[in-house]
Amino acid sequence: MIRVSILGTGNVAAHLFRAFLKNEDVEIVQVVGRNTEALRAFSKQTDTLSDFTNIAEADIFIIAVKDDAIVKVSEYVKHVKGMVVHTSGGVSMDALSGCRRHGVFYPLQTFSKNSAVDMRSVPICLEAHDSADTDLLNALAAMISESVHQVDSACRKALHLTAVIVNNFTNHLYYIGQQICVENELPAEILQPLIRETAAKIEQLSPYDAQTGPARRGDHETISMHLEQLKASKFKAVYEVMSASIEKLYP
Amino acid sequence: MIRVSILGTGNVAAHLFRAFLKNEDVEIVQVVGRNTEALRAFSKQTDTLSDFTNIAEADIFIIAVKDDAIVKVSEYVKHVKGMVVHTSGGVSMDALSGCRRHGVFYPLQTFSKNSAVDMRSVPICLEAHDSADTDLLNALAAMISESVHQVDSACRKALHLTAVIVNNFTNHLYYIGQQICVENELPAEILQPLIRETAAKIEQLSPYDAQTGPARRGDHETISMHLEQLKASKFKAVYEVMSASIEKLYP
Repeated sequence: MIRVSILGTGNVAAHLFRAFLKNEDVEIVQVVGRNTEALRAFSKQTDTLSDFTNIAEADIFIIAVKDDAIVKVSEYVKHVKGMVVHTSGGVSMDALSGCRRHGVFYPLQTFSKNSAVDMRSVPICLEAHDSADTDLLNALAAMISESVHQVDSACRKALHLTAVIVNNFTNHLYYIGQQICVENELPAEILQPLIRETAAKIEQLSPYDAQTGPARRGDHETISMHLEQLKASKFKAVYEVMSASIEKLYP
Repeated sequence: MIRVSILGTGNVAAHLFRAFLKNEDVEIVQVVGRNTEALRAFSKQTDTLSDFTNIAEADIFIIAVKDDAIVKVSEYVKHVKGMVVHTSGGVSMDALSGCRRHGVFYPLQTFSKNSAVDMRSVPICLEAHDSADTDLLNALAAMISESVHQVDSACRKALHLTAVIVNNFTNHLYYIGQQICVENELPAEILQPLIRETAAKIEQLSPYDAQTGPARRGDHETISMHLEQLKASKFKAVYEVMSASIEKLYP
């Protein structure tokens, strides 16, 4: 049995909470947050607390708050016996060095309020200082996910960068595509099957081999036509840079 | 019953062929292609032909070849009674104006050899000159897909541009993400659940609302850190342009 407390009430906190609840070997001691309204979503199933000075002992304290609040929240669990971890891809483990035993428990996924995520497939990236703490985090992660990885701060930094690229930037491309649809009175949903298949395809084919399109073919006629279509668009620079970057890969 | 012949043996031809085969109301008259090896994949189930001067009559001739070969292939069906369509997003309907009755039958999807696509969900974008031909294409499209759209050449041009953006460019972002993983000795598959969820998310949330990350927050500290990580990378320009484009959207 691992006793866990969660500090934070946002999307990451909520998804981890639900995953822990399903597992008999995890006991959720407390969910702690300033927002009493948000705490209500947890209060039926566990003890909730808005007073950070009254935190009970646990084996692992998971700080699941915005990056810039991690250090501040960690002040409240400086003197606990349990291990303190944060869940951020972009923050180094040292941010928690004020806590005696500390580490990282980073689920590599985008979580939103109303979208159920199958936590068993979500990669959990762990970091700790010694093997006992690593084992503890490993045990907890393995209870909720089939994809557990030891990733040090330098590699996690790289991984966070890739997450920005494949999640944030990709979403922006979806936005641009949908905007062009709307401008042309096409239903934005028309792109959905293509978007799904593009994501699914690279499970069978490497992105290098899956690449198609005018930039891959060096088809400058089509590229010029597209740039002409985009001449008044604020997204022209995106088209230019992406096409140039693809073209360089396939000389 | 609609009698269809397919000119071409590539991925689009093969996927349309399979979808037509499943439907009792479509008769595939011939599959025509120069590549006799490629024709073999079709020859068990229909008549195949490598001699373009011997094409039999049909209701609809579907030219499913590379963009730059469409006009040339259309020469062989100049004098048929049936309707001649191409399957390209980037080529105007007028490319077939040498054929008496002509139009466009554009499936908005990325097709690859070994990946089965559920054609029923693939949007089929149609264009024709008169209502009788439009009705004919509509009838054929509705037999294989639940998502049939009338899209004129100007709109299809816009749609093709969006396909390049959400398919080709997105795939390139996947490539960049996987490259960074490989450089850091992380398994490239670690990104897959995030990629899948990013694509799935916008079925519930608009891409505008789904946007997260440092550029959306205006978090210049993280952006600078990422640019520092990419300082020797050929993909730095992609990061800069994408971040700037997102940031402009969320002032």
